[in-house]
Amino acid sequence: MKCAFLQINATVGDITANAGRIAEGVREAAGQGADLCLTPELALVGYPPRDLLLYPAFAARAEEAALRLAGEIAPLKTALVLGTIGKNISGRGKALHNQALFIAGGAIRARYSKRLLPTYDVFDEARYFEPGSAPCVVDCKGLRVALTVCEDIWNDSAFWSHPAYALDPLEDHPPFDLLINISASPFTVGKQALRQNMLATLARKHAAPVLYANLTGGNDDLVFDGRSQHMTPEGLSSRARGFAEDLLVVDVAAPSSSIAEDDFTPEAEIWNALTLGLRDYCRKTGRAAALLGLSGGVDSSLVAALACEALGKEQVLGLLMPSPYSSGHSLADAARLAANLGLATTTLPIEPLMRAYDAALAPAFAGRAPDAAEENLQARIRGNLLMAFSNKFGRLLLTTGNKSEISVGYCTIYGDMCGALAVIGDLYKTEVFRLCRWLNRRRGEVIPDNVLRKPPSAELRPGQTDQDSLPPYEELDALLVDMLEKRRGVGELVASGHNPEIVRKVAELVQAAEFKRRLAAPVLKITGDAFGLGWRMPIACRQAYIL
Amino acid sequence: MKCAFLQINATVGDITANAGRIAEGVREAAGQGADLCLTPELALVGYPPRDLLLYPAFAARAEEAALRLAGEIAPLKTALVLGTIGKNISGRGKALHNQALFIAGGAIRARYSKRLLPTYDVFDEARYFEPGSAPCVVDCKGLRVALTVCEDIWNDSAFWSHPAYALDPLEDHPPFDLLINISASPFTVGKQALRQNMLATLARKHAAPVLYANLTGGNDDLVFDGRSQHMTPEGLSSRARGFAEDLLVVDVAAPSSSIAEDDFTPEAEIWNALTLGLRDYCRKTGRAAALLGLSGGVDSSLVAALACEALGKEQVLGLLMPSPYSSGHSLADAARLAANLGLATTTLPIEPLMRAYDAALAPAFAGRAPDAAEENLQARIRGNLLMAFSNKFGRLLLTTGNKSEISVGYCTIYGDMCGALAVIGDLYKTEVFRLCRWLNRRRGEVIPDNVLRKPPSAELRPGQTDQDSLPPYEELDALLVDMLEKRRGVGELVASGHNPEIVRKVAELVQAAEFKRRLAAPVLKITGDAFGLGWRMPIACRQAYIL
Repeated sequence: MKCAFLQINATVGDITANAGRIAEGVREAAGQGADLCLTPELALVGYPPRDLLLYPAFAARAEEAALRLAGEIAPLKTALVLGTIGKNISGRGKALHNQALFIAGGAIRARYSKRLLPTYDVFDEARYFEPGSAPCVVDCKGLRVALTVCEDIWNDSAFWSHPAYALDPLEDHPPFDLLINISASPFTVGKQALRQNMLATLARKHAAPVLYANLTGGNDDLVFDGRSQHMTPEGLSSRARGFAEDLLVVDVAAPSSSIAEDDFTPEAEIWNALTLGLRDYCRKTGRAAALLGLSGGVDSSLVAALACEALGKEQVLGLLMPSPYSSGHSLADAARLAANLGLATTTLPIEPLMRAYDAALAPAFAGRAPDAAEENLQARIRGNLLMAFSNKFGRLLLTTGNKSEISVGYCTIYGDMCGALAVIGDLYKTEVFRLCRWLNRRRGEVIPDNVLRKPPSAELRPGQTDQDSLPPYEELDALLVDMLEKRRGVGELVASGHNPEIVRKVAELVQAAEFKRRLAAPVLKITGDAFGLGWRMPIACRQAYIL
Repeated sequence: MKCAFLQINATVGDITANAGRIAEGVREAAGQGADLCLTPELALVGYPPRDLLLYPAFAARAEEAALRLAGEIAPLKTALVLGTIGKNISGRGKALHNQALFIAGGAIRARYSKRLLPTYDVFDEARYFEPGSAPCVVDCKGLRVALTVCEDIWNDSAFWSHPAYALDPLEDHPPFDLLINISASPFTVGKQALRQNMLATLARKHAAPVLYANLTGGNDDLVFDGRSQHMTPEGLSSRARGFAEDLLVVDVAAPSSSIAEDDFTPEAEIWNALTLGLRDYCRKTGRAAALLGLSGGVDSSLVAALACEALGKEQVLGLLMPSPYSSGHSLADAARLAANLGLATTTLPIEPLMRAYDAALAPAFAGRAPDAAEENLQARIRGNLLMAFSNKFGRLLLTTGNKSEISVGYCTIYGDMCGALAVIGDLYKTEVFRLCRWLNRRRGEVIPDNVLRKPPSAELRPGQTDQDSLPPYEELDALLVDMLEKRRGVGELVASGHNPEIVRKVAELVQAAEFKRRLAAPVLKITGDAFGLGWRMPIACRQAYIL
């Protein structure tokens, strides 16, 4: 039996376009002799559709589209496993199921409802879906084909030390010859190895091939890396492309090695994920061009390079906004970066605006020393200028903060936090440096060497460096990983060797920055613990991290 | 048997203080002869603790505190039902349960785990908790006492036409003489009548009294209204205060009518909810004083009145920031409001700053007509000035946008959207007017009459009014209720009598404003459909509302 992975880049809510893309894929696959086509999870409505699911008309539209699709592909003699939503007709519980429809001969022959609903991190599936209660095996060309959706196969008690669900849908499953899993599994660094391991374990355990159909593309903060695969008990047989659409036809009976070229270097993966996420965020919000402030620092330099890669250098504009506190190298480094990238820039000194604010505020602030209020104003003047450009020319403003800054609040809300997308908000400062060095190794000097050598500074007062207020980034980042990702309390952090004074100070900074994070732009997620929708902390609380 | 409701205002994460507050309540109740004390749901850790629950040390701290509390109250001869978290020891599923502990004689005698986990709107309980699988009846003074937690009693298939869960924990429940429900049920307008109805139905159905112990206080966007109650099969016996802490002792065997005075007028409820929410947000984030921009419009006037009520007029500062487009009445109306409230103000004209930006941007913007870029700059200059005051004087900035504006994006991000809390962000414009008129009826002129009479205007260009770009607010708000709360698609909206052209335009505005809403300050929630954590829409999507 020949199966085709329709690894599409679906747009959330755009049912018509997604259905068109699927029909086109089915036609192409049928032309290549496919007996069965597989879409990713919820491919018809896009993933994650979030609260669009609360609109009954949305489900109705999806159902109409599924039926229309069934009719449309009927003449093609290929069956389709379609990821979409379906009504819960039991009269109790959530209104919808997350389903895999088995479509053949112009009709929906079976509806399998996802049984394990991920409700952690960015996933809210229990908010919308009633879990299914039964397995589903369909007959396709004489093979017993088991249908599952994403999370359903991620709870094997032999694979996981602490299963996340009480139930394992593959335990006591009726026998099958082929296991199909349609997924919308977002990229995180290193996940592919885990996935492949897990699929290999399953294929061996059940002595059956697994067809894993994954989504690709960026949707808000999430990036889906595709890499649909055909796993046999003997190992990986075929794998579709990473971070791109693909149509891959495999023969289940006669595995052949058709493994798309891929690069699993962490830096290459991050680069590919961020460029895809950025490109799709622009495309799916209808913006062709972007804009960012260039400070001559490493963060904005990296975001500029990513934006040029994602959108084309002609579509990117850099604004240089020096203040009296800007060092000589800031402008020179930014100019060199722009030259390296072939990027257009505009320079707008902010000193006249700083003076105008000082004058406006002088009567009210008389007798008070300059402090964070004045420092923040510089960042906010720059934010205003960037937004004026964004509004005037319709360019999407990119924000350039990194995860270290966002963690401890070393950023100005309504200032450098202005922007529609936090492109590198899930990279710690040390990782920003690492990605820049990797880029330069691959392509020659893109990020100017001096940018990578000078000490990081916000340049909001004379001679300032980040390390005036923060521990060295190597130390800070290691602490943040333990605190935010490993979720260690202060006691454990100290016990595991971190400096107690720094632990306490950083814990307080992290808690105090919660409000800013709540109002931050969406962060392209590349780890299991990104800020954004998967990070849900209270603001008005006490002793949060002082555990 | 005498039971005491410990209706406390817990702070999220502040386990030590919450435990202290509970111990104090138990002592006081014991002094009044209570045999059993009831805290609200999760009272020990505060509600909602959100991702603090993902820190194992947090659960460990809570457990220590519960054990300490058990020891501390042992000499008092009163039992305690304590709302807290407990470890899931099954080895599968989520790490925690949401529990009601039965504490007596210095030890934890029983642990009931909540069985229905609300996962909709602002609630994410399935993210953190494994549901319990068994009922729990304890013996207290010879009575069979059933323990339940909040949602557990909200799924009676006789009361609800579409039960939200497949399971009803009260179906086939072992017999009991008394039903206890500890809750953290946030206020929404009109909910109290539903609650009371539902409790009365339960008491009659099970022929047993119900003790309903609810939380009070504000936590971020949520306001809890207390109103703990003793419901008997014959009807309401006692009810604690609304929007305030209370300690109410009732005799289960001899119901007496001890019903705290309360005001269920919708406007009074909203006023009480917003002042409590605002006060607690300030207190729990450690700010005593607040700040807001006064435009002379109805929104900022109402927020000023609410802030004076919540914090005391001495703690509130109004900034008047007129531009050349401000009408004469703006300053006069703001001054009159300030006089009515006894509020201090500072005036900072923004024209010099507008000119400074125009000059800075002139080379880049040459030959282009003024548009939204310049209008937004005015709002952003004001935002910067307000934030400069907030930073310099440590005052919490209040944002004054209403739900109509936030819905259609009639507000400037990084401008008038600056602020730590959207006090009236869950009130439509027409409701803002209604609340102002109610206030004036109760207290004489607080909001100047002219503010309520003049046509609403953002005053960002000469002679502008809101109705230049928006349908009349009566029409807009009715449409928004149908679109956002009743979740009707465009087809249904038109079918139900809304103007097709306006429906389509507003649907597009609502979708386009999604990004701004994602970056908006927390909105004090007073309806079932507030923006904020309970509103989870994708940004980069298509045809979202064009259903």
